[in-house]
Amino acid sequence: MELKVKRIDLEVGGYEIVLNEDDARELGLYPQERAKVGIKGNLTTAIVSVSESMIKPGEIGMFVDISEKLGVKNGDIVKVTPTTRPMSVDYIKKKINGEKLKKDEIYNIIKDITEDNLSTIELASYVTALQIRGMDMDETEWTTNAMVDTGDTIDFEYTVFDVHSIGGVPGNKYAPIAVPIAASLGLKIPKTSSRAISSASGTADLMEVLTRVDLGINDIKRIVDEVGATLAWGGAVNLAPADDKIVRVEYPLGIDPHSQVLASVMAKKKAVGADFMVLDIPMGPETKVPDERVARKYAMDFIELGSRLGIVVEAAVTYGGQPVGRAIGPALEAREAMMALEGKKVSNSLIEKATDIAGMLLELGNIVDRGEGKELAKETLKNGRAREKFLEILNAQGSKGIEKSDDIPIGKYHADIHSPDEGYISIVSNGKLVRIARTAGAPKDKGAGIILNKKKSEKVEKGEVLYTIYADSKAKLDEAVKIAKMLKPLQIEGMLLERIPSYKK
Amino acid sequence: MELKVKRIDLEVGGYEIVLNEDDARELGLYPQERAKVGIKGNLTTAIVSVSESMIKPGEIGMFVDISEKLGVKNGDIVKVTPTTRPMSVDYIKKKINGEKLKKDEIYNIIKDITEDNLSTIELASYVTALQIRGMDMDETEWTTNAMVDTGDTIDFEYTVFDVHSIGGVPGNKYAPIAVPIAASLGLKIPKTSSRAISSASGTADLMEVLTRVDLGINDIKRIVDEVGATLAWGGAVNLAPADDKIVRVEYPLGIDPHSQVLASVMAKKKAVGADFMVLDIPMGPETKVPDERVARKYAMDFIELGSRLGIVVEAAVTYGGQPVGRAIGPALEAREAMMALEGKKVSNSLIEKATDIAGMLLELGNIVDRGEGKELAKETLKNGRAREKFLEILNAQGSKGIEKSDDIPIGKYHADIHSPDEGYISIVSNGKLVRIARTAGAPKDKGAGIILNKKKSEKVEKGEVLYTIYADSKAKLDEAVKIAKMLKPLQIEGMLLERIPSYKK
Repeated sequence: MELKVKRIDLEVGGYEIVLNEDDARELGLYPQERAKVGIKGNLTTAIVSVSESMIKPGEIGMFVDISEKLGVKNGDIVKVTPTTRPMSVDYIKKKINGEKLKKDEIYNIIKDITEDNLSTIELASYVTALQIRGMDMDETEWTTNAMVDTGDTIDFEYTVFDVHSIGGVPGNKYAPIAVPIAASLGLKIPKTSSRAISSASGTADLMEVLTRVDLGINDIKRIVDEVGATLAWGGAVNLAPADDKIVRVEYPLGIDPHSQVLASVMAKKKAVGADFMVLDIPMGPETKVPDERVARKYAMDFIELGSRLGIVVEAAVTYGGQPVGRAIGPALEAREAMMALEGKKVSNSLIEKATDIAGMLLELGNIVDRGEGKELAKETLKNGRAREKFLEILNAQGSKGIEKSDDIPIGKYHADIHSPDEGYISIVSNGKLVRIARTAGAPKDKGAGIILNKKKSEKVEKGEVLYTIYADSKAKLDEAVKIAKMLKPLQIEGMLLERIPSYKK
Repeated sequence: MELKVKRIDLEVGGYEIVLNEDDARELGLYPQERAKVGIKGNLTTAIVSVSESMIKPGEIGMFVDISEKLGVKNGDIVKVTPTTRPMSVDYIKKKINGEKLKKDEIYNIIKDITEDNLSTIELASYVTALQIRGMDMDETEWTTNAMVDTGDTIDFEYTVFDVHSIGGVPGNKYAPIAVPIAASLGLKIPKTSSRAISSASGTADLMEVLTRVDLGINDIKRIVDEVGATLAWGGAVNLAPADDKIVRVEYPLGIDPHSQVLASVMAKKKAVGADFMVLDIPMGPETKVPDERVARKYAMDFIELGSRLGIVVEAAVTYGGQPVGRAIGPALEAREAMMALEGKKVSNSLIEKATDIAGMLLELGNIVDRGEGKELAKETLKNGRAREKFLEILNAQGSKGIEKSDDIPIGKYHADIHSPDEGYISIVSNGKLVRIARTAGAPKDKGAGIILNKKKSEKVEKGEVLYTIYADSKAKLDEAVKIAKMLKPLQIEGMLLERIPSYKK
C-alpha cells in the first residue's frame, strides 16, 4: 500500500509508524505488529500503531527516528507492506516457557534489542521472563559476548585493569581515590562509570564537578595511554549499548534479573579490554545484597563469568550498612574524595575502603606481593602521588580548573538537623538519606546533598547536629528539611534499649 | 514546575506526556515514571516520555487522551509534579516473585488496567508473569469479578443463557444456527462475539454481513426482551473492558495465560447476567487444545469458575482437526449458516455441531429432558422456526436486507485449486487455510475466503477441485493463489502410506 508521509516530531527510541485504522485493517496489521516501509530502494522495518482520526486514510505517521533513517519529508509517498515479527520473539517465548536458549538465539535477541527491532512489549516481556526463569552460566556468557559484539570496543596493547561496584550504598566514592593510587603505580585503568539513576550521585556525576566526563572511545584510549587512567562517563561511549535499552524497561519495573546484572557489568569490562578486575559488593540491609549468602553468590558468579571471558575477577564484599564516608551528593562527594587525596582528615570508612580496593588492584597487577597492597596504597595516598595522578587525570579529561578540595563549590543553602534526644545512633537509613538528598536537588543540582555529622554507634547529645542538608535553591532546601523531619533517617537510642518489668500479679 | 502545553495529535490509548530531558531531570523524572498534571483544579496522573529536542525546555507535549481529559489547548500552562507509581506495580512484582495475590490487590491491578494507569511495560510484564506463574482458582475468580466490576453490566429479569467457543478452529459458525434454535424455543440469549484477530472471520464479522452488530447495552436488553436473542459484537459494549487492554499486549506476544482466558470469557458472561452457559472446546493439532488432557483441564476449570460465579457451565469438547463446515470467511460463512437454517444441503459437521450445542442449551433450560435436546434442535432447524427466529434477530439488530442465503454477496473473483494427484485427503491444515483466506482479504474484505470441496478422508481424483478461493480484488486473489500453491493446506496420500522393503543383505 502506498501512503503519504506525515512526520511526527517526536523521538520514540525506535522505528515506529502510525497508520489509520482502516488502512491497518486493509493491510491486516494490528497494533504492535510490524511493517516494512520503503522509499527509493531504502527499506526498514517499523512497529505499527493505529490511529482513529489523527492519521487519515492514505497517510502514514512517521516518528523522527524512522523519518531520518529513510530521509523522508512530509508529503513523500512510501510503500508499506506487512512483515512477520523477528525470530527473537520466538526465542523470548522459549524463555517464557522455561527453556534454555542457544547461543545464536541470544545473539539474535541482543542484536534486535540493540537495533530497536523489539517493541516495548516484547522487551518488557523478555526482562520479566529473565527475572522469573533466570539464565545459566552458558546463557549469561553468550549474553555478555553478544552485548560486546553489538557495540564498540577498545583495544589496548597492554594489560588493562578495572574496578566496578554493584552499588546500592550512598557516598561510595572509592573510585576517584583507588584509581589514581593504582594508576600512579603503573596500572592502566580505563574506568567508565554511570550517572545516578535512583541514587543521589553516580561516580560520573561526582567527576563532572571537576572535569569533562563525556569522553569518546579515542579520548579514553589516548588518556589511558598518556596518564594511565580515566574516570569517564560510560553513557558517552557505545560500549555494550544493549544495556541502556534493557535498563530502560528494568528501571520502571524495579526488577534486576541476576543474569542481566552479570552480563551488563562484564560486557562493559570486556568491551574496554579488561584483563583484571576488582568487584565491590556492598552488603547491608538496604543494598542489593542483604546477606553473606547473596554476596557469595554474586562473587562466585562474577568470578566464573570472568574466567569464561578471560577476565580475572576478585570480589570485595564491603560494609554497606550505612553511607561510605560522610558526604552524599556530587560536589560534596567530590570534595570528600579530594580531601582524602590531599591527606586531610576524612571518615575512616572511606580511606579503608578505597585503599582496600586499590591494594587488591596492586596485588592483581603484581606490583606488590599478596597481602602488601593495602599498605602500599595507603603510602601512595600519604606521599601525594595519588593526588598528583588524580590532577593529571582531571587535566587530561578537561579540568574545570579546580585544583583543591576547598575550591569545590557546594550548595549555597544549608540547614542543620539536630538530635531530639541524647543517645547513640542505632540506625542510619541509606534509602531515606538518598530520598532527602534527591529532594534537595541531587544529582541534578551538583551542590546539593548531605554531610553526616554522626554515623552508626556514635554518641550524640540532645540538640547536637546529626547531619547538614545542602541545596542550590532555598525552596528545595525547605522541601528536603520537611521530608527529613518526617523520614528520620538516623535513629537514636539510649544504652537502655528495653526495660522489662518485674512479674506482676 | 509550570510548563506550556504543546498538543500532540495522536491517540496513544492512555495518559502520556512528553517532557524535555532537562525539565525531566530537574523534576527527577525518568521515562515511564509518572507525574501529576494539573490545570484549574483538574488533576490527572500521566506516564512520562522524554524528548531531546522536539519538546523544548518549558514545554510539555500532551497526547490526545490527556489533552481531552484536562481540556487543554496549545499554550495553556499546566503544573507538573512527580508522583509515585501505583500500588498495583508492587502487586505485579509480587506475581513476578511467584506469590499469590490478594483479592484487593487483583482489583487494584484490573482497575489500573481499565483506567490506563499502567504503562505498556508494566502491563506486558504482568501478562508475562501470569503466563509463567499462573493463578489459582481464587485469584482467577477475583480477577473475573474485578473485570466485571470495572465495566458495564446488563440486568435481565429472567434466566439468561449463553454459549461461547474458546476458538482456534476456522469456519466455526455454530452460533448463528444454535442461538436461533434455542431462542425460538423460549431461551433468552444475549450473545456477544468478537471480531477476528488472527483468524479469517469472527462471529461478529460474519453477522455484520447480514445486520448491524455494534449494539449498545440498551439495544441488547431491548432486543433480547423482544425476540429472545442477539448476535452482537462484544467490542461495542463496555463489558469487562480490561479484557481488550490485556489482549492488546497478549496478542503481539502470542501468549495467552490460562487464568486470563478463563477470567476474560467468564467476566463477559457474568456481565450479561448469564445463568447457564455452554462452552465449546475445539480440540485438534492446530487449535488451542491439542489433546484430551488439555481439553479436560479447560472444561474443569471453566466449570469450577462458573460455579464460583453462579453460572452453570457445561462444556462440549468438539472436533477441531479441520474446519467446521466447508466455508471460511465472513460472507461465505454467513451463506453456509443461512443455508443450514434454510434446510439446504450443507456439511454434516456443521449441522451436527450446531444442533449438539443447541441441544445442550435446551437441556440446561429444561425445555426437554436430558438426552433429548439434539433431536428437538434438529427438528427446530428442519421446521423452519430457527430460520424465522434468525430473521427476527437480523431485523431487530438492523437487517441489511438479506433474507436468504442466495442474496449474500460473495467475492467477485475466484480461483479453483486442483488436486495434483489421485488419493485421499490425509491432512487439512487449519492454520494454512486461515493464512490463505487472510491473504485473499478476509476478514476485512467480507466476500473473501475459501470453500472447501474436499475434507479429511475424502477421495479425490487427479485434477479435481480441492478448494476455491474467493476475493473482492483480483490482486489479492492472485496473491492468495500464490501462497496456496506454496503452503499446500490439503495433503493427499494414496491408500498405501509407506512401503517397507524386504530385509536386504
